[in-house]
Amino acid sequence: MTSNELIVKMVFDRWNTLIKNADTLINDLSNEQFQREVSPGKNTGLYLLGHLIAVHDDMIPILNLGEKEYPDLFEMFVKSPDKSTVKKPDIEDLKIIWNNQLKSLNLKFEGITPNEWFEKHNSVSIEDFINEPHRNKLNIISTRSTHLAYHVGQLILLK
Amino acid sequence: MTSNELIVKMVFDRWNTLIKNADTLINDLSNEQFQREVSPGKNTGLYLLGHLIAVHDDMIPILNLGEKEYPDLFEMFVKSPDKSTVKKPDIEDLKIIWNNQLKSLNLKFEGITPNEWFEKHNSVSIEDFINEPHRNKLNIISTRSTHLAYHVGQLILLK
Repeated sequence: MTSNELIVKMVFDRWNTLIKNADTLINDLSNEQFQREVSPGKNTGLYLLGHLIAVHDDMIPILNLGEKEYPDLFEMFVKSPDKSTVKKPDIEDLKIIWNNQLKSLNLKFEGITPNEWFEKHNSVSIEDFINEPHRNKLNIISTRSTHLAYHVGQLILLK
Repeated sequence: MTSNELIVKMVFDRWNTLIKNADTLINDLSNEQFQREVSPGKNTGLYLLGHLIAVHDDMIPILNLGEKEYPDLFEMFVKSPDKSTVKKPDIEDLKIIWNNQLKSLNLKFEGITPNEWFEKHNSVSIEDFINEPHRNKLNIISTRSTHLAYHVGQLILLK
């Protein structure tokens, strides 16, 4: 195993474990639980699920893997707060999207070689990347892993 | 920059950012806010702060950096749930410990070279490490980063 392969495995072990835990929780929560706020006055479970999908979808253009698959969700769940009047999808539909997205992202990630993970992503300039080579594609998986953990820590409160 | 140095920087950038955000939040929350549950019936802020300190303290023996500095907190905040009758420290004392611990951990981490971060830690056997070389010291920082993010996602609800 090369050093790069080892690191890719380290980062993806973390990502996959977090995704698996999130997936188990999401399938465990009832539609009624998803309507509730994780704490009084805070985001609902539905909003957080939509937010996770939208943020994960946004990785596709950042990693140069194509266009977003659910561009509308970015407007609803990243640019707008939960309490906005923007009409949101039903929780049943979001759960289906979550499942489809997991398969789609996995397929896309499998197409990236270990060395390619150390290349620059699309949210960093060529100049900045020269000085900050750790801002590579793999770092996107790493930052999205802690983002996912943060919100799963909130979703679990709905149980 | 060698490949190993790059990875260590990647993982520590994540850890340091999360610690900094946690630190800002912890200094921002009032003592009264720390007494509250993050959501009705769930852990209090005080318990979560104690839990983070105890889990971070536990990295010291795992990384072969010496003995735990606050062994009593592990019993209170990892082995016992929040609602146990175990007497807990005051929030003022926990905040002081949190600050002291940050300095102490940073000093200890600085003593580890980039290559040493890829060595085996004390919670994995020699046999397992041969087959799973990604279970190295750096991976401890990576898993504790997502653990930290998970609980900061809960502490922020106290605001």
